[in-house]
Amino acid sequence: MIMIKLEEALEIISKSSVELLGVERLLLENSLNGVLAEDVFTDMDFPSFNKSAMDGYAIQKIEIDKKLRVLEFIPAGKKPEKTIVSGTCSKIMTGAMLPHGADMVVMQEDVVVDGDFISVENLNSKSNILKQGEDLKVGSLLLKKGTHIKPVHIGLLASIGITEPLVYKQPVVSVFSTGNELVSPHQKPEPPKIRNSNSVQLVSLSNSMGAKTHNLEQVDDNMDLIFDTVKKALAVSDIVVLTGGASVGDYDFTADVFDRLKAETHFTRLAIQPGKPVLFATVEGKYLFGLSGNPVSSFVQFQLLVKPLLNSLVGKEAGEKIFKLPISIHKKRKKSERMLFFPIRINEKMEAEPIDYHGSAHLNAYQIADGMASFPMGINELKKGDIVDVRPI
Amino acid sequence: MIMIKLEEALEIISKSSVELLGVERLLLENSLNGVLAEDVFTDMDFPSFNKSAMDGYAIQKIEIDKKLRVLEFIPAGKKPEKTIVSGTCSKIMTGAMLPHGADMVVMQEDVVVDGDFISVENLNSKSNILKQGEDLKVGSLLLKKGTHIKPVHIGLLASIGITEPLVYKQPVVSVFSTGNELVSPHQKPEPPKIRNSNSVQLVSLSNSMGAKTHNLEQVDDNMDLIFDTVKKALAVSDIVVLTGGASVGDYDFTADVFDRLKAETHFTRLAIQPGKPVLFATVEGKYLFGLSGNPVSSFVQFQLLVKPLLNSLVGKEAGEKIFKLPISIHKKRKKSERMLFFPIRINEKMEAEPIDYHGSAHLNAYQIADGMASFPMGINELKKGDIVDVRPI
Repeated sequence: MIMIKLEEALEIISKSSVELLGVERLLLENSLNGVLAEDVFTDMDFPSFNKSAMDGYAIQKIEIDKKLRVLEFIPAGKKPEKTIVSGTCSKIMTGAMLPHGADMVVMQEDVVVDGDFISVENLNSKSNILKQGEDLKVGSLLLKKGTHIKPVHIGLLASIGITEPLVYKQPVVSVFSTGNELVSPHQKPEPPKIRNSNSVQLVSLSNSMGAKTHNLEQVDDNMDLIFDTVKKALAVSDIVVLTGGASVGDYDFTADVFDRLKAETHFTRLAIQPGKPVLFATVEGKYLFGLSGNPVSSFVQFQLLVKPLLNSLVGKEAGEKIFKLPISIHKKRKKSERMLFFPIRINEKMEAEPIDYHGSAHLNAYQIADGMASFPMGINELKKGDIVDVRPI
Repeated sequence: MIMIKLEEALEIISKSSVELLGVERLLLENSLNGVLAEDVFTDMDFPSFNKSAMDGYAIQKIEIDKKLRVLEFIPAGKKPEKTIVSGTCSKIMTGAMLPHGADMVVMQEDVVVDGDFISVENLNSKSNILKQGEDLKVGSLLLKKGTHIKPVHIGLLASIGITEPLVYKQPVVSVFSTGNELVSPHQKPEPPKIRNSNSVQLVSLSNSMGAKTHNLEQVDDNMDLIFDTVKKALAVSDIVVLTGGASVGDYDFTADVFDRLKAETHFTRLAIQPGKPVLFATVEGKYLFGLSGNPVSSFVQFQLLVKPLLNSLVGKEAGEKIFKLPISIHKKRKKSERMLFFPIRINEKMEAEPIDYHGSAHLNAYQIADGMASFPMGINELKKGDIVDVRPI
């Protein structure tokens, strides 16, 4: 199969995931990082009544220069009992309901109190009234379907009484690594064995996106074992991600396993570096990824391909925000037939500052990165100050 | 008490939180978003042996132009059994151990196979060997104490066998709102009552920082009730955050409650807008915040003050990253004695684009914000293109 561009791959992923996974109601406190599955509307005006913006006295504006008798004290939450008429006022607290007759609140700092009477000292006082509905009218669209629920949205949902928001169901992702060379992270590997760091890394990447996960750890390079593992994983997952075996060597079984599952394989090679050999397939409404066995490559592949699918399946914008930043140094490369991704920090001057990076074996370089910057295809040279695309990680 | 600057407040918070909350070991899969409480070092070289970067044939470089007999097949994870001597080579897979005698791997695409023999076609082939220790030597510092654990760090920890990292304990935060006007989000409030959206918003803000939380909901404006609630909350929390009653009106009990608790109150008014009345106190190694009853003000106060404390208590850099971005429009204000915060989006041109914002009652404006930008004290005017500080939210 031919090598395709990242944009084409994203188009394929996006088209294959128009069907979402369904919806569910969550308790408000558990809905953080979920995605709203319906538009929500205000059930009252905001503010829902004329209220004071200050601690002070509710008066009639035309009487600001008169001595005024205090009728009552109106704290927040208490209904005013008296109407403000000529020669009177009421003491009022921030957030309290404005009494009938009043059209102004003078701050208590602007007032001299004399027993039951007040006189206003600052005649230029503002009205200090929050008018009913001035922020939002009843029935207004408050939050759109597709909103990624952050704490501010939790507050807004609470304020309109939505204590069990309807959200899209999060996908279930099963992850495992293939390779006879892999031992559990708990073991000390004797060369030529190495620890399987890929599974737990991909599990935590998926968790950080809100997905539910199964870590199936490691499976040997054996066609039947890999086939059985994928088949079982598909029964309990929406997405199965395996690493290793994505290339075309003697031990690269991923493509064959996908075929044997009668999955439709959409691409096998992508014009990206690192991470060229990468498989994406669909079968019976489920998704299969064959990522690289190299932890840097699989990290980059996850960011570029799995993340957009996870976003898309919960009704979010598939693509993450891409920042356009000037690169802090001159940077060259020899070949340019693939899009090259390299780790960067965002420095004080808001430049993309490349991190010393030895290539795809060097996961360590990503530990201090703020994002991945990219060399576009066909470009061999970036001059200091050239604008690069930065994907936050 | 006088109004102090944000910088002074942050200095106070930082000095009062030098003592951390202790450490604990978590399972690696549960340590995402935790903070490492110790330096971690590699327990082996990376790579831990000389390995092939490609699928191909391990040869002696000086014999690249000879016909070579294939001795064995070396998949990843299998120890080579034969030494490469003159006239021989071994088939080798990516990640497999280089056999003795070999100093080069030629890619299989560059080779013609003839039975048990190969000839190399591309004599300019690279060596394609990853040398033992070329990324990291055994005993190298891999991750520093204080590292905020993201998925990439989970992968790195797994790769050096740290399956139960030592992390700082997360603080426990108790939150409640004071105010007779407040009803539960579950109820439909009759004016002049309103729903309590503050508690759940502050709880989810704290959760999003990794803290454990107790939502104590609402308490009436009653000195004794508030005192009892804070006292009980302190027994099970590191931080107690209450909202409402932070000002100096008749129903503002927060300052008195803190005094009655014999807490040391460090500040009560801050030169910020919104959010001027805000209390911070400490008592017996615990922390008290009296935030505004207004959900926008308490949101801003949380971002500016509680967030740095939560960071500081788990050994992270207290301050979040501040972005320096040009503002997209001309913006003015009348008074300049406080630092003004307003919601912005980061647009395509990487400018801070102010969001239409009616002032502190208007939480809705923050729902589409990427961050808060600020007007420094003493500045009344920002010209299009002027650089502003942007705090991501």
